[in-house]
Amino acid sequence: MAKDEVVLLDAYVSMFGMRVRLALAEKGVEYEYREEDLANKSPLLLQMNPVHKKIPVLIHNGKPVCESLVIVQYIDEVWKDKSPLLPSEPYQRAQARFWADYIDKKIYDAGRKLWTTKGEELESSKKAFIEIMKVLEGELGDKSYFGGENFGFVDVALIPFYSWFDAYETCANFSVEEHCPKLIAWAKRCMERETVSKSLADPKKIYDFVLLMKKKFGIE
Amino acid sequence: MAKDEVVLLDAYVSMFGMRVRLALAEKGVEYEYREEDLANKSPLLLQMNPVHKKIPVLIHNGKPVCESLVIVQYIDEVWKDKSPLLPSEPYQRAQARFWADYIDKKIYDAGRKLWTTKGEELESSKKAFIEIMKVLEGELGDKSYFGGENFGFVDVALIPFYSWFDAYETCANFSVEEHCPKLIAWAKRCMERETVSKSLADPKKIYDFVLLMKKKFGIE
Repeated sequence: MAKDEVVLLDAYVSMFGMRVRLALAEKGVEYEYREEDLANKSPLLLQMNPVHKKIPVLIHNGKPVCESLVIVQYIDEVWKDKSPLLPSEPYQRAQARFWADYIDKKIYDAGRKLWTTKGEELESSKKAFIEIMKVLEGELGDKSYFGGENFGFVDVALIPFYSWFDAYETCANFSVEEHCPKLIAWAKRCMERETVSKSLADPKKIYDFVLLMKKKFGIE
Repeated sequence: MAKDEVVLLDAYVSMFGMRVRLALAEKGVEYEYREEDLANKSPLLLQMNPVHKKIPVLIHNGKPVCESLVIVQYIDEVWKDKSPLLPSEPYQRAQARFWADYIDKKIYDAGRKLWTTKGEELESSKKAFIEIMKVLEGELGDKSYFGGENFGFVDVALIPFYSWFDAYETCANFSVEEHCPKLIAWAKRCMERETVSKSLADPKKIYDFVLLMKKKFGIE
């Protein structure tokens, strides 16, 4: 078989892009990384993802796959011999998909409100964010990873948000660890994996990005 | 192996519930149907889906699976010998998941606006709904079903909305068929399958339900 040609259209600070970088790292897949300027999207991005026009897009031998959780499952199915991400048993697979979906539906919007709102709205956004984190901490319980002993699909879906926590906490003046110590212990455990630490963006650069966006949007 | 015990917590008019009824029908799985009163949810529903507290919930040998697309994939993986819904090839699986996700992210909210808004907002909601349908019609093209020759995952995700079209069209005074004739031809093709026609709710009952909701919400 000819060598796979793998290209990733991505943006450094994107938690969705980080998921894909991490899944590729877990599988040991070599790929060409192309940073997109989201204010001036490339013709290739618009051609490869005409429906959503969003990163990340994985282009595998010329064919695009879009939407981060769809991409991570695709990577898991194509490079299936190394580091399985989804469990093999149907009930456990369904649980993993349920929690990844929960993360997708809840955290991005709740997190964004932590640096785009103020006053009373910020206070209620903070409470809502902590509630979401507590639900996740409850699901994690005393396990090492969300799926049990092994790093897997739900961990890949969630850990990229950890690189945004500094920015969330600084903008909203609170501490996730104070409310969810087990979740932070899990995040630190994940960060000990080289695949994770090398795939996630630098929290300082994310905070700089958030400050830039706040300025751009005219938020105080 | 002991006989499977399958219980479905559902609501007759729910498009998400219909997906699960349809997947179970495709697989020929016998199950106990329990209609939930969504204004007064049962203790069993709250116990089985404490996170979202929503129907549908599939309870298989006492263990709950929640979120309709997660449930449909679970059904496809457990009862895998009959009527496969997802294709077997990874790229095609990713495409099917992409389109099911598109349907999930777009149609429910866009459809709801067709009977909850009026005036200019209704006009722009109608345009947005038609645009979404045109994207789907473009993806369908001249294929029999979204996956090609065989009825599959994307068809299961989308066809339940067809039973709501009468209500959408009557409330918003437009015709989907006028804009998307191929999509309606696809829907009629699907309705020729007994599994589909017996799983979908009666459009008249959905329209009655919508009128009831409009009254409850104080919408003219």
